[in-house]
Amino acid sequence: MQTVFIELGDRSYPIVIGPGLLGMASSFATLPPATSALIVTNTTVEPLYAQALRTSLEAKYAKVHGVVLPDGEEHKSWTTLNLIFDALLSQGCDRTTILFALGGGVVGDMTGFAAACYMRGVPFVQVPTTLLAQVDSSVGGKTGINHPLGKNMLGAFHQPLLVVCDLATLATLPARELSAGLAEVIKYGPIYDMAFMGWLEAHMDALRARDQAALAHAVRRSCEIKAEVVAQDERESGLRAILNFGHTFGHAIESGMGYGVWLHGEGVGVGMLMAAELSRRLNLLDAAFCARLRALVERAGLPVRAPVLDAQDNAGRYLELMRVDKKAQAGDIRFVLIDGPGKAVVRGAPDALVREVIDLCCATD
Amino acid sequence: MQTVFIELGDRSYPIVIGPGLLGMASSFATLPPATSALIVTNTTVEPLYAQALRTSLEAKYAKVHGVVLPDGEEHKSWTTLNLIFDALLSQGCDRTTILFALGGGVVGDMTGFAAACYMRGVPFVQVPTTLLAQVDSSVGGKTGINHPLGKNMLGAFHQPLLVVCDLATLATLPARELSAGLAEVIKYGPIYDMAFMGWLEAHMDALRARDQAALAHAVRRSCEIKAEVVAQDERESGLRAILNFGHTFGHAIESGMGYGVWLHGEGVGVGMLMAAELSRRLNLLDAAFCARLRALVERAGLPVRAPVLDAQDNAGRYLELMRVDKKAQAGDIRFVLIDGPGKAVVRGAPDALVREVIDLCCATD
Repeated sequence: MQTVFIELGDRSYPIVIGPGLLGMASSFATLPPATSALIVTNTTVEPLYAQALRTSLEAKYAKVHGVVLPDGEEHKSWTTLNLIFDALLSQGCDRTTILFALGGGVVGDMTGFAAACYMRGVPFVQVPTTLLAQVDSSVGGKTGINHPLGKNMLGAFHQPLLVVCDLATLATLPARELSAGLAEVIKYGPIYDMAFMGWLEAHMDALRARDQAALAHAVRRSCEIKAEVVAQDERESGLRAILNFGHTFGHAIESGMGYGVWLHGEGVGVGMLMAAELSRRLNLLDAAFCARLRALVERAGLPVRAPVLDAQDNAGRYLELMRVDKKAQAGDIRFVLIDGPGKAVVRGAPDALVREVIDLCCATD
Repeated sequence: MQTVFIELGDRSYPIVIGPGLLGMASSFATLPPATSALIVTNTTVEPLYAQALRTSLEAKYAKVHGVVLPDGEEHKSWTTLNLIFDALLSQGCDRTTILFALGGGVVGDMTGFAAACYMRGVPFVQVPTTLLAQVDSSVGGKTGINHPLGKNMLGAFHQPLLVVCDLATLATLPARELSAGLAEVIKYGPIYDMAFMGWLEAHMDALRARDQAALAHAVRRSCEIKAEVVAQDERESGLRAILNFGHTFGHAIESGMGYGVWLHGEGVGVGMLMAAELSRRLNLLDAAFCARLRALVERAGLPVRAPVLDAQDNAGRYLELMRVDKKAQAGDIRFVLIDGPGKAVVRGAPDALVREVIDLCCATD
């Protein structure tokens, strides 16, 4: 077992990484006492891992309740969130209840937001079971739900007490979701650590073959980088925005295609290529790096061509969707761009250049 | 104009108190720049004060949007909250938008919660137009909505940037709402300041006649006491709970009767009498003080008899509703009791004693 610490003063917490952790009571030994625990999971993960987690928690908590949500980004809504509140209230859960998010990014984001809101805030623990959640969404305290007019528009910063990354859960992950998670792993190279990008190029085949040692390193190094960035800027007033590399274009794809059609990581994967291409057109990056990034994204099993969102005015539709991005200011879209390999910058770009990038990346050949 | 400061480190803010403040651009001079402002109000307050506030804000902000909510505690729900999100998103409001809550406690609680959640947090300003909101709910950062299973069950601690208490707005307040606000004013005496209770006994007629000097003192002193308590315990881990004197019984009445049938302040008024009676039965208080408090509540124009919530098992219904109170722990109801005049304590009580209190206070003669 390896441990990465997130240093946030009195909101600091550990991320523990290793195989089989969710089935071990010792993984949860550092948690405070509570009157009850609520496991929040989804219909896909519940039959695989809920009983093992329940057994671990029953060693510590007198009452362990559960609620099972529908699976998928399209269910990251108030209606689904309310299932968690209904479970908490109908079980009489009070302020000392601890919530456990068992699943991927959607379950983690919703459980964290429910914990932030319930009685104005109760503690929660992340038990991510997808690569994407282990390397990105379970760490850093961003929680929330989607609104029909924009992704993650409603939410809170609410840090977990603990993150338990059980690498054994990655064995059951569908190949498409493994690839989607690799997009968020790849992200850390161009924005922060080119040595890690080189390591990924050398180990991409091992990662896709689910080599345990390779996965352990990818998860640990991703969490380390995220921890370093979040510790410097918890509430994204500056530096933290670089973690959204690929997300401005990616969110437009997810939202424009309808939540759940493209996976979040798939949108981010092609979104990174679009952001890199935009960086190149702003003379921040050379064509060789764009090609290198594209090759790595493709080897991760991810799409490298962006979808057409509107047959009449495709670039206009992308721009319209990106203007409601949370980073936008006074209608100006803020892009996370690569300012030379290993360094990110957040800035605007002329619409005309952005349109060229969209036209190029959506082209059918 | 008088100013009371809430000292909360980098979340500190002023409460300004005086007649005509919402129509003066100078009241808002200390606020930071923003791309736009959104005035959130309700159907009752909008025709009275929205234009004056809009004019003040247009001196500072290039765009001033508005959204009008239905009036009443029964609308303090997710459905109504979503009207605020729809307005923000349809107007393309970004992270530098400032929300303005123009209205009573319901508008303030919902606007604050919307500001806490929108894009994981945007700033907001309280412009309370009811006595209850000016002396209590607009100060201290508690925000939220009701759930069918419990009052204020979903919410956030989110401090405003500024509170503007325009005393002129109290002139248009219906008498029933003025009385409801006086319940929250009276509260500060038994729990914290018996000199203030004496002042209220001497000035209750002037307050009900809306004497401006008397109202100014009542609002200022109430805000001062609340500021002192909140500064010591922002997130209600201890001391702050004393501000809920009368609220445990009061919330049961509000929820049991159906939101909007009894006003919040009416529930708190009779709830204080029930909590005082429970204190007496626990030998914390004498009968003379209970009679004195009852006389003051009655002179404020408030009901002094609790409603019957269930013809078969009234006390059982009260207890059931109180067990979902946010202060409850492991099913034990925590009451705010008076431990001698001017001092509050939070503790449990035997069900049998609580039943006696309910039976007595609901008795028809």
